[in-house]
Amino acid sequence: MNDKRLEQGIKNLQEIDGEAGERVIHSLEAIAPDVGRYILEFAFGDIYNNPVLSFREREIITITSLLTQGDTNAQLVVHINGSLNVGLTEEEIIEVFTHCIPYVGFPKVLNAITVAKGVFNDRRA
Amino acid sequence: MNDKRLEQGIKNLQEIDGEAGERVIHSLEAIAPDVGRYILEFAFGDIYNNPVLSFREREIITITSLLTQGDTNAQLVVHINGSLNVGLTEEEIIEVFTHCIPYVGFPKVLNAITVAKGVFNDRRA
Amino acid sequence: MNDKRLEQGIKNLQEIDGEAGERVIHSLEAIAPDVGRYILEFAFGDIYNNPVLSFREREIITITSLLTQGDTNAQLVVHINGSLNVGLTEEEIIEVFTHCIPYVGFPKVLNAITVAKGVFNDRRA
Amino acid sequence: MNDKRLEQGIKNLQEIDGEAGERVIHSLEAIAPDVGRYILEFAFGDIYNNPVLSFREREIITITSLLTQGDTNAQLVVHINGSLNVGLTEEEIIEVFTHCIPYVGFPKVLNAITVAKGVFNDRRA
Amino acid sequence: MNDKRLEQGIKNLQEIDGEAGERVIHSLEAIAPDVGRYILEFAFGDIYNNPVLSFREREIITITSLLTQGDTNAQLVVHINGSLNVGLTEEEIIEVFTHCIPYVGFPKVLNAITVAKGVFNDRRA
Amino acid sequence: MNDKRLEQGIKNLQEIDGEAGERVIHSLEAIAPDVGRYILEFAFGDIYNNPVLSFREREIITITSLLTQGDTNAQLVVHINGSLNVGLTEEEIIEVFTHCIPYVGFPKVLNAITVAKGVFNDRRA
Repeated sequence: MNDKRLEQGIKNLQEIDGEAGERVIHSLEAIAPDVGRYILEFAFGDIYNNPVLSFREREIITITSLLTQGDTNAQLVVHINGSLNVGLTEEEIIEVFTHCIPYVGFPKVLNAITVAKGVFNDRRA
Repeated sequence: MNDKRLEQGIKNLQEIDGEAGERVIHSLEAIAPDVGRYILEFAFGDIYNNPVLSFREREIITITSLLTQGDTNAQLVVHINGSLNVGLTEEEIIEVFTHCIPYVGFPKVLNAITVAKGVFNDRRA
Repeated sequence: MNDKRLEQGIKNLQEIDGEAGERVIHSLEAIAPDVGRYILEFAFGDIYNNPVLSFREREIITITSLLTQGDTNAQLVVHINGSLNVGLTEEEIIEVFTHCIPYVGFPKVLNAITVAKGVFNDRRA
Repeated sequence: MNDKRLEQGIKNLQEIDGEAGERVIHSLEAIAPDVGRYILEFAFGDIYNNPVLSFREREIITITSLLTQGDTNAQLVVHINGSLNVGLTEEEIIEVFTHCIPYVGFPKVLNAITVAKGVFNDRRA
Repeated sequence: MNDKRLEQGIKNLQEIDGEAGERVIHSLEAIAPDVGRYILEFAFGDIYNNPVLSFREREIITITSLLTQGDTNAQLVVHINGSLNVGLTEEEIIEVFTHCIPYVGFPKVLNAITVAKGVFNDRRA
Repeated sequence: MNDKRLEQGIKNLQEIDGEAGERVIHSLEAIAPDVGRYILEFAFGDIYNNPVLSFREREIITITSLLTQGDTNAQLVVHINGSLNVGLTEEEIIEVFTHCIPYVGFPKVLNAITVAKGVFNDRRA
């Protein structure tokens, strides 16, 4: 049932992205409510819900894909927070980015590190 | 010292990518030997050598980055093999790719699954 | 309910992509059945089902996005066929690609035209 | 003759992009006048001038290509305005972006929706 | 006048890309003649014709851009030939690709080297 | 020896990127010192150090690759400065960007020109 997917998606979003995720959904309500619903039902209700990978591994995949595609600073903020929420350390997040250098080069890695620096500082404030 | 980086890189390449990795280096010898050396010294000697992430996690990051950037079938063959070599199951590899759908869409994921199908079949032959 | 999304998705996939679409789903059954189900439920059941845009406009969007991201020949084959199935002419498809030149340059447009040439020839055979 | 291409390009640019388009050309005058001339002669004089597709369809293609390639916020502002100028509704623009989710994933779609939100608000002010 | 742009473009295309360039134009005649004309008039008649950069520098830029965007093997074949035609050595072409490693990573560079290997061999045959 | 690579890298970085390059390295010290070291040892110590291409040609390649991949404004600032430092004129830099139009389209070229405008103005101030 759709309702079950939606409920499960809301639960997973809250556990991983916390308030930052809820802000994304909220910002879509007036302009593109279907897109907000698809994030909850499909991304967090269907995809994240499969137990074959842990949330820790899913956040490693997510921040790698965001770094690699570029122009994703807003999403990196959400998922660097998400990575910390599910137990990755700051050092591990920087190492995920560093591992990408041989595959995507320095510019995208430097961009992601700059975003991470901001997130780490904000959480300490 | 460079020699130590090179030795460590050769060791890491063999453990992760096995013969497929050696074939890449060998194919570069006549045309671009520096590039082969940089793969060993920098990618496998410097980057992969940091113990903050496991080889399992590094291969998850690698196949995610390759899938996300696209036009990387040759490299996906090497690193899907690498992923299996360091202990990921076929089901986990498919789930890494599936997790990328909300971030990159279906086309790149379908391409990576097609490559994986070929690698899985080849290893059973 | 999920069943309704699935049914609607199968119906839309058949109308747009015909046999080529069914082959994609079939090829996923043994290796990644969830991905095949998501294509039907989410892409064709949720997204394509919204009447705000016609199937003609949706196929224009689809082939534009595939051309722009690159490395999508297999998907272009399916959706150039889909474009013809929902009423675009060969001339219109080539013009969609031509319109992309100022936005993505010649190489990606030339690749898409080459794929279109093959599809047009196959349908005449 | 070049003059005819230039004249036609200026006319098409004005009809589609209005003042926002003229600002782009104006901003190029001191630093890269050839590039401004090519936008007028080639993009708007040659490409947009072919009647096989309507301006409505050309703007659908344009915003799809801009969304898909990423890092195009400045151009999206111009062409979301252009889309409204040639008759697309706000709801249709959001649906064009939503249709791209299965092909490029959520991050690029969320970026384009954020830009659209700003343009829609500015035009109401 | 357009005729002058076309003539100049044909001349530049022949000097740089030789037969390989003519084959591209010829292959477009039946399916997309406008696109062939735009390559001659705009790319080779307008852009390449500006004397601020030499043909040698233009081919360095071209193969760098093709390598960086990926999925451009057909165009790399044409422009690796073009690079040799305007005086770059095999060693210099490989070094152009090698220089891109810090900016785009190894996979795209390895793809371009593989294409270069084929071109170098074909010209020796 | 690593020390020699590091020394040579620092020397090359200073000659090409000057203060802007040093700021990048400095900004990485607290959060990702390894990445700063890799930029010096690998990018500027290994890659830039090969005499097959001049620094002028290397900066042409670098700004072309940055423009082509997109989302690299911070790096373009550094390397437009670098291009001027190694002897490219403002007109030549704009022509490098203009040459990319047939390969990547107008949007990425317009973005790079906007960044160049800022750099040129800053150096005059």
